[in-house]
Amino acid sequence: MLERDHIFIYGPPGSGKSYLGSRLAQILGLPFIDLDQEIEREAGVAISEIFSASGEGSFRRQESEQLKKVSQCGKDSVVALGGGTLLTEENQQLVESSGRVICLHADESTIVRNLDNHKNTRPLLAGDFHSKLRILLEQRAEHYNQFSHVDVRQRSEDQILNDLQIESHRFNIQGMGKPYAVRLQPGSLDRVGKILQDSGLRGPILIVSDRNIYPLYGRQVELRLQQAGFVSAAVVLEPGEKDKNLAAIQRIWDGCVSAGMERASTILALGGGVVSDLAGFAASSYMRGIAWVAYPTSLLAMVDASLGGKTGFDLPQGKNLIGAFYAPTKVLVDPNCLASLPISEVRNGMAEVLKHGIIADPSLVELCRSGRWHSNLVNLLPKAMAVKIKILCADPYEKGQRAVLNFGHTVGHAIELVSGFRLRHGEAVGLGMLAEAQISVQLGLAEPELPAEIALCLKQLGLPVSIPGALPIDAILAAMQKDKKIEGGRIKFALPQRVGRVDFGIEVEIELVRSVIMQLMG
Amino acid sequence: MLERDHIFIYGPPGSGKSYLGSRLAQILGLPFIDLDQEIEREAGVAISEIFSASGEGSFRRQESEQLKKVSQCGKDSVVALGGGTLLTEENQQLVESSGRVICLHADESTIVRNLDNHKNTRPLLAGDFHSKLRILLEQRAEHYNQFSHVDVRQRSEDQILNDLQIESHRFNIQGMGKPYAVRLQPGSLDRVGKILQDSGLRGPILIVSDRNIYPLYGRQVELRLQQAGFVSAAVVLEPGEKDKNLAAIQRIWDGCVSAGMERASTILALGGGVVSDLAGFAASSYMRGIAWVAYPTSLLAMVDASLGGKTGFDLPQGKNLIGAFYAPTKVLVDPNCLASLPISEVRNGMAEVLKHGIIADPSLVELCRSGRWHSNLVNLLPKAMAVKIKILCADPYEKGQRAVLNFGHTVGHAIELVSGFRLRHGEAVGLGMLAEAQISVQLGLAEPELPAEIALCLKQLGLPVSIPGALPIDAILAAMQKDKKIEGGRIKFALPQRVGRVDFGIEVEIELVRSVIMQLMG
Repeated sequence: MLERDHIFIYGPPGSGKSYLGSRLAQILGLPFIDLDQEIEREAGVAISEIFSASGEGSFRRQESEQLKKVSQCGKDSVVALGGGTLLTEENQQLVESSGRVICLHADESTIVRNLDNHKNTRPLLAGDFHSKLRILLEQRAEHYNQFSHVDVRQRSEDQILNDLQIESHRFNIQGMGKPYAVRLQPGSLDRVGKILQDSGLRGPILIVSDRNIYPLYGRQVELRLQQAGFVSAAVVLEPGEKDKNLAAIQRIWDGCVSAGMERASTILALGGGVVSDLAGFAASSYMRGIAWVAYPTSLLAMVDASLGGKTGFDLPQGKNLIGAFYAPTKVLVDPNCLASLPISEVRNGMAEVLKHGIIADPSLVELCRSGRWHSNLVNLLPKAMAVKIKILCADPYEKGQRAVLNFGHTVGHAIELVSGFRLRHGEAVGLGMLAEAQISVQLGLAEPELPAEIALCLKQLGLPVSIPGALPIDAILAAMQKDKKIEGGRIKFALPQRVGRVDFGIEVEIELVRSVIMQLMG
Repeated sequence: MLERDHIFIYGPPGSGKSYLGSRLAQILGLPFIDLDQEIEREAGVAISEIFSASGEGSFRRQESEQLKKVSQCGKDSVVALGGGTLLTEENQQLVESSGRVICLHADESTIVRNLDNHKNTRPLLAGDFHSKLRILLEQRAEHYNQFSHVDVRQRSEDQILNDLQIESHRFNIQGMGKPYAVRLQPGSLDRVGKILQDSGLRGPILIVSDRNIYPLYGRQVELRLQQAGFVSAAVVLEPGEKDKNLAAIQRIWDGCVSAGMERASTILALGGGVVSDLAGFAASSYMRGIAWVAYPTSLLAMVDASLGGKTGFDLPQGKNLIGAFYAPTKVLVDPNCLASLPISEVRNGMAEVLKHGIIADPSLVELCRSGRWHSNLVNLLPKAMAVKIKILCADPYEKGQRAVLNFGHTVGHAIELVSGFRLRHGEAVGLGMLAEAQISVQLGLAEPELPAEIALCLKQLGLPVSIPGALPIDAILAAMQKDKKIEGGRIKFALPQRVGRVDFGIEVEIELVRSVIMQLMG
């Protein structure tokens, strides 16, 4: 893994590198550096003057010098490159060893629109602007195509910035407590000590994990924390939903006391969704709230549970009945962890990926249906996270829109609970999505082919499309009525209209729910 | 108790009724009505014109008419009266039956300064301004003196507004979640249903109380809730600090589930500080946070625990180790409850009143020392609350200044815990204040006579000045080190300099603490 992890914004002249780069930096809370501006500042003259006085060769030398300095900058930054900065092998190696390159894909008309007011300041396009631009785009097409890219053609700024966050593998979640960073970085687990140190977090650090995950990463994390000068201790819980209870919370609280945790100390949640729900709630309540870092190790936790500050545990009477909205200080995702997940656990997470696709990203649904999802996990991951993060920033406390994320969960939670957690969360949510899509069709809200489309995806993901074994329907309905999505005694659902559109707050008669679930009984 | 509870701001012309009234309304989040402006709006002419055209008699009739309308206004408001509105018996009866009158005490020079720019708009002061003003003030001195008053002479706006809140028996606390109202109203307990209804709160309502308090008020509250159309249920806990534990929290959570509580439901904490700490924490965590109303019935809870959103419970390892900052939706104080408190319980609360006096209000310390405190409880109450509320608004999450409220508590909590709660909270805090004042003297921070002054107050309040029985010093010091006020392994104290000035964040050597507590051993 890289010591530095800058985001380099690249692309043809006039594609919007400086503007979009600075907006991205603002969103992510990172410093912004404009390479051209740095060169001008150093040289004391405008770039067009360097070109006319000393030629392109001289400019490229100055550019390489400046790029070296910027790449070594101590703090991860968003860097807008020049339109030809990466034409040299040397520069390309430099940026690729100090961060991620994202190339803006723009066509002639977009560039002409962008540059309308600045034609004369672009030395390579001076003179016959249009034909020069066309030639430049043709000559460099192959060059630009080799980088990860974000398409800026005929798309809103909002869409472009969303894609830039996905490609940069960084997000920032705002609206609950302090804004917090979400960061995907392969191999980051091996640098956890340094990362927590750089984030200004304090020890003692209590690692909360479970018996499945701790043997995989626990010692490594402890070693890295120790190397960074942290005192640490660990609480290793029983894995799985069945033990997401008060007894587990008490073990974490006791662990905090034993480790001598103070108000400035930190809990590190290392594991799946159950671990982060429990660790987050313990952090929210120990000494009225201490810092916690989510380090999700399962796909499910990466795309869902670790994001958004919903923490809590189950009572015997119902799931997640006790909890708190309590944002982590940081969410760190190491996609390398996915490699050690059993396939059943990956499938478990894919149900939430599919859900996010149905809510807002048809390309995710397309991948699930095509069966190419398993070889595309690392690409799916930031996209699926982006869907949830966008909703969280708009409605952190679930006063409205955030409720769309409950799609599949009203029925799903009830099935999961009544199965005694024999059905995994993802399996239950898959069935829940199927049932709720069917409810939506019955209400005349969804296209009739939607449930079949979802069923096809579930099959491709290896998830069940009917409830295996016999579950008592009355128990399922009773569990649903104890769930949190009830107001005024009626059951509210988030229901899909079509792929890419889910509505929330729709009240449904219990008898319709019953008949739809009955149809799913195997 | 009154159906309406307006705040009428009264006082001589130019004392600042309109300006201060509107500022007070703003702070309290209440509507503001200026009686003179209402008269002018109705009449369509300026008041000076009414005077010159039809004489004072005609104006007074219009004023009485307008006052009737305003008094009947459906929503409690801050009303600025005219300078002579209450000269008639009829008007005076009207305002006294529909709210509280607060008279601004101003002298000639203050009024002259206020009126400098408006001399001609005050009909009664037209002509020889100074001599007319002097005559008016002399003539009406006795009249103005009959009302509760706030002195506006040579005092800052901040001080005046603080006093106006005290006299109006209303406060508004900002900075943690939504701003919330604090309201003192004798007899309000008997209107609790109507008050919760007017506040837009929803049922089911779970009353959380204890075996001491529930028999006194429980049935009455349930009846009033029922009459207002609320479904209610009750959880009656064991009284006292000893049972401020997780088992009690579980009983409340279970009560919530049994009562069918939903996200929009409300918990009503009816009792002392233990009840509000527990009920508030249960509210913070049930379904990730539901509304709660604090109805403190003890002096201690009124002046301290019910204010500021610190909720939580004890672990066997230490006090308040688990909790949340979670503001109530409303704090309702019925001073009539004080009448049914045993004297030991009043003393328990007076320790916190004394603490607030030492922090910021020497007049409270004066009353404690004089022994006149018991006959002045109802007046002490809003003053003691005001000290805490002002600090809360400046530092809701105890990042700094709020720590001064820990004065007496670092030692006090430890003594209380090690005594096995044989010592009451107030007794322990009294001893804690004595110890911490002594520490402050030893560090050269406080005047040497401060501990004796505090001891005198404690004696007058009937609180111990030495630790009764034998408590193991090492256990006290160990308990202190498990307390929350520790950072980086050193013990931080809030220490007094003199009456009216306490500083926070002062690190103290454990050996000094030991020697001072040893001296307090009886």
